[in-house]
Amino acid sequence: MYVNADKLISHAHLFTMTGDGVGYVADGAVAVRGDRIAATGPTSDLAARYKAAETIDATGCAVLPGLIDAHMHTPLALVRGVAQDVAHWMQRALAPYSRHITPEAALAGTQLNILEALKAGTTTMVDYTRPLPGWAEAFQQAGVRARLTPTINAMPPGGMAGWKLGDLYPLDPAAGQASIDTAVAFARDWHGASGGRITAMLGPQAPDMLPRDQLLQVKRIACREGWMIHMHVAQGDREIDQMLKRYGRRTPAFLDSLGLLDEELLAVHLTEATDDEAALIARRGAHMALCSGSIGIIDGIVPPSRAFRDAGGLVALGSDQASGNNCNNIFNEMKLTALFNKIQHRDPAVMPAWEVLRMATVEGARAIGLGDETGSLEVGKQADLILVDLGVPNLSPVLDAPVRNIVPNLVYAASGHEVKTVMVAGQVLMRDRQVHTLDEDAILDEAQIQAGAIARRVVADPVHRGMALLAAMEAGQL
Amino acid sequence: MYVNADKLISHAHLFTMTGDGVGYVADGAVAVRGDRIAATGPTSDLAARYKAAETIDATGCAVLPGLIDAHMHTPLALVRGVAQDVAHWMQRALAPYSRHITPEAALAGTQLNILEALKAGTTTMVDYTRPLPGWAEAFQQAGVRARLTPTINAMPPGGMAGWKLGDLYPLDPAAGQASIDTAVAFARDWHGASGGRITAMLGPQAPDMLPRDQLLQVKRIACREGWMIHMHVAQGDREIDQMLKRYGRRTPAFLDSLGLLDEELLAVHLTEATDDEAALIARRGAHMALCSGSIGIIDGIVPPSRAFRDAGGLVALGSDQASGNNCNNIFNEMKLTALFNKIQHRDPAVMPAWEVLRMATVEGARAIGLGDETGSLEVGKQADLILVDLGVPNLSPVLDAPVRNIVPNLVYAASGHEVKTVMVAGQVLMRDRQVHTLDEDAILDEAQIQAGAIARRVVADPVHRGMALLAAMEAGQL
Repeated sequence: MYVNADKLISHAHLFTMTGDGVGYVADGAVAVRGDRIAATGPTSDLAARYKAAETIDATGCAVLPGLIDAHMHTPLALVRGVAQDVAHWMQRALAPYSRHITPEAALAGTQLNILEALKAGTTTMVDYTRPLPGWAEAFQQAGVRARLTPTINAMPPGGMAGWKLGDLYPLDPAAGQASIDTAVAFARDWHGASGGRITAMLGPQAPDMLPRDQLLQVKRIACREGWMIHMHVAQGDREIDQMLKRYGRRTPAFLDSLGLLDEELLAVHLTEATDDEAALIARRGAHMALCSGSIGIIDGIVPPSRAFRDAGGLVALGSDQASGNNCNNIFNEMKLTALFNKIQHRDPAVMPAWEVLRMATVEGARAIGLGDETGSLEVGKQADLILVDLGVPNLSPVLDAPVRNIVPNLVYAASGHEVKTVMVAGQVLMRDRQVHTLDEDAILDEAQIQAGAIARRVVADPVHRGMALLAAMEAGQL
Repeated sequence: MYVNADKLISHAHLFTMTGDGVGYVADGAVAVRGDRIAATGPTSDLAARYKAAETIDATGCAVLPGLIDAHMHTPLALVRGVAQDVAHWMQRALAPYSRHITPEAALAGTQLNILEALKAGTTTMVDYTRPLPGWAEAFQQAGVRARLTPTINAMPPGGMAGWKLGDLYPLDPAAGQASIDTAVAFARDWHGASGGRITAMLGPQAPDMLPRDQLLQVKRIACREGWMIHMHVAQGDREIDQMLKRYGRRTPAFLDSLGLLDEELLAVHLTEATDDEAALIARRGAHMALCSGSIGIIDGIVPPSRAFRDAGGLVALGSDQASGNNCNNIFNEMKLTALFNKIQHRDPAVMPAWEVLRMATVEGARAIGLGDETGSLEVGKQADLILVDLGVPNLSPVLDAPVRNIVPNLVYAASGHEVKTVMVAGQVLMRDRQVHTLDEDAILDEAQIQAGAIARRVVADPVHRGMALLAAMEAGQL
C-alpha cells in the first residue's frame, strides 16, 4: 500500500536540523507532497512507503534545509564592491553611488541579488529596503521565500543641507508618517502572498531615524496586524551618539523603555552593543540578525552574538549589502561567524560548525518568525531544501566514522557553488546549477547596463570627488 | 611584420601585479612564447604585433598571475575536516588519523590537494611533508609549479613512549641525520626538474624538533647548494616551551643567534611570535608564510603579519592542512587575511584587497624565492596565469569608474570556483573548468577509497577513544 508523493529525494546524507544537533540520517530521504514535507527518514523506509511522481537521486549529496538570510539590502547588489577598505564607508564610499540608484537600477540589483543568493542555497530572503516598483514581484517570480521589509524613516526628503556631524538629525514627522503609510500599505498588499511564501515586516530604519511617537506607532500597528519589526539596532557610533543626545540613553535601554524589546523584534547588527546590552535584548525575547562579513569588512568589528546566545537569544545570519561585504552568501556568513568568534575569544572551540549551521537554518528561521514553516526538515513544514554535491575536490573525501566530516566541511570548505539543486515550497527552482525560474543571462546583462549608467552619473556628480577610494584608484591599487 | 607567439590571451581585465599596485591594463593582452611571457599590454597593441598559434579570448574575465600557496601539507587532504572546533587539535583530533595514513593514502591526498588547489587558481604549490613515493611525480604530472620540502626531524622513530607533557622531547640524532640525508637526496634529485618547474627546499619541521647542530648542518647544506630553508617557526606554545627549556630563549632569538634568520628562510606561521619578534625576523630579511584560515580555526589566533610587513618583510599566504582549515584555496586565504586583520586592529582600512592580492601573487613569489620566475605578468617571466570569469552573479556587475570594483570583489566575493582557465609555464592545465592533466574522477575515487580505509583503521585503534570530536558525534552535532 503506497502513499502518493510528488517528489522523493533519496539516498542523501540527510541533515534534518531537528532536535538539538544536526539531525543526521544516513542514506536518508525526504518525501514531498504539494508544498510540504510528508516524511523524512531512511531511504529504505520511505521508498517502501511512498510512490513518488518524481524521484531525485541525492547520492553523494548532503541534503539540508534551505538557508535563511535574515538581513539583505538587495538593490545594493548593483554597486557591489565600492565601499570596503575605508573608514566612514557609508559617507565616503557608498553615498556617492547610492544617491544615483534609480528605481530601475534598484530592481536590477534586487534581481541580481536573488539570483546570487539562490545559487548559493539561500531559500528564505529577508530584504530591507525602500519599497520600489516590482520589488515583491521579483521574489514572487524567483519562487523563493521572502520576508520583505519596507524601511521607514523620518529623514528630511530634501536632504540634510546644513546638518553638521554631531548635530541631532532634523527629523521630519510628515516624512515619517508618509513612510509609515507606504510601508503599511505594502505589508497589507503582500503579507501572505503566494500561498504564504511572501510575507512582510515593518522596518524602522534605525531608532535614531524616527521620532519616538512614530516608533511607538509602528509598534502598535505591528502588534495589531501580527507583523514583526525588523530594525537596525546599535548599528554604529553615530546612532549611539544621536540616542544619547536626544534621549539620554543608549539604544538598548531606550528600546527597552519603549517596550520594543520583545519576541516580535528582529534586531539587526548590534555592532555597538556591549555584551551586557546584547544579553538584555536577548533576555527580553528579541532576536538578532548577525552580519559577520559585512560588519567585519566595513567596521572591523565582531558583534556580540556569543553573549546574545549565551543569554538564551536566537541568532540568525545575514549577508547585508554587497557594496561592502561583497557577496550575499550564507555559506560565507557561516564560515566567517565561526572564525571571527574563535579569534575574538582566542578559542578554537567557540562556535563550532554545527552551531553556525543551526543559525543558518533552524535557529535563523525561528529568529525571523518562520520557525513553524521552514528551517528544518520535518513533517508538515514547507519543503525548502538544498542538495549540496559532496563529490567535488574541496568537499572530498566524505568520512563517516569515528567522526563525520560533512558538517565541518560544509561550514569551513564549501563556498555555495557546490549547491546543486534548490527546492522551495516543493518546487525545484534550480537543478544541476540551472535556475528554472529566472533568466540568468538577462539579469546579468540588465545589472551591467544599469550599473554602468549609475557609474556615469557618479562621475558627472562633483560629490564623487570626496570618495575615499579615489586615492586607491590613483595609486593603481584597484 | 608580425612576431610569432604560441598563445595570445586577449581582451582581459589584466592585472599584471607589476609596480607598486595591481598593474591594471584595460582590454589587456598577454603574449606567450614557449613557457614565458613575451609581452603584455593593450590588446590593440599586442594583436597588431603578434601572430599567435592560438588566441584565448578573455572577454569578461580578469587575468591575473597564478596564485602562490606558500605552505601546504597535501597528504592531509585525505583527512579533511577531522580536526577543527577543538582545543589541542593535533593531539586530540588529527593524531589518531595521521598515524594511519599509509604512503598510498598520502599520495592520494597529495593528488586530491593538487586538484583542489589548481581548480581554485593556485599555480605554485609549496608542499611540506615527509617524502613519499610518487610525491614529486604528482606535481610533475599535474603541470603545476611546485617547491617541495621534505620535512626533517629528529623525533624518535619508535614514538614518544614515556614522554610527558612539559618534558623535553627525546631528540634522536641518528634519526635526525637519516632525515637530513633523505631530504638532501630528494632535493638533489628534484631541484630544477621539469625545466625548473619543480624545485626543492630543506624543511626542518620546527626548531624544537632537531638538535642545534643538525639545524646548523641543514643551514650549511642549504647555503652550499643554494636551497632555501622552509620551517615552522613559533608555531605553538609547546614549541616556545621546548625552546625555553632547552636553550633558555624563545624561538626568534634562538634562530637569530644561529644566523638562521636571513633571506633564505621561509618562516611559517609565527603563531606565537610577538609583534617585536615578527619585526626582528622581517628585519633580518627572512620571509613569512601566513596561514590565516588554518591558524584561525585551530588556534583562534591572528598571526602578526601586519607587524612583519610594517618592518619591511615579505608575506606569502599558505593554506596549510585540510584536516583543520578545511580547504586549500588562496582566494579563501586572501579574504580571511584581510578580514582577520581588520578585526584584530578594529580598523576597516587595514589590509585592503590590493595588499592581500599582492601577498597571493608578486609578494608571495618573492617570499618563496621565485620572484624572478612567477608572481607577476611581465616579459621574461614564466607564463603562469589564470582567467577568472567576472560574468557570474557574485562578481557582477563590473564597475570601472570612478572606482574599479574588480580587485575588492576578487578578494571579498570570489571563492575560486570562478577560475575558468589556468596556465602554468605556457601550458593550459585547465580550460573552462576541465583539468587536462589530471583524471579528476579517478583522483576523487581513489581519495574516497583510501580515506575509507584510514577511517576503518582509526576505528580499530583504541587510541581513537581519546578524540575530542567523539563527544560531538554522540551529541548528534556532526
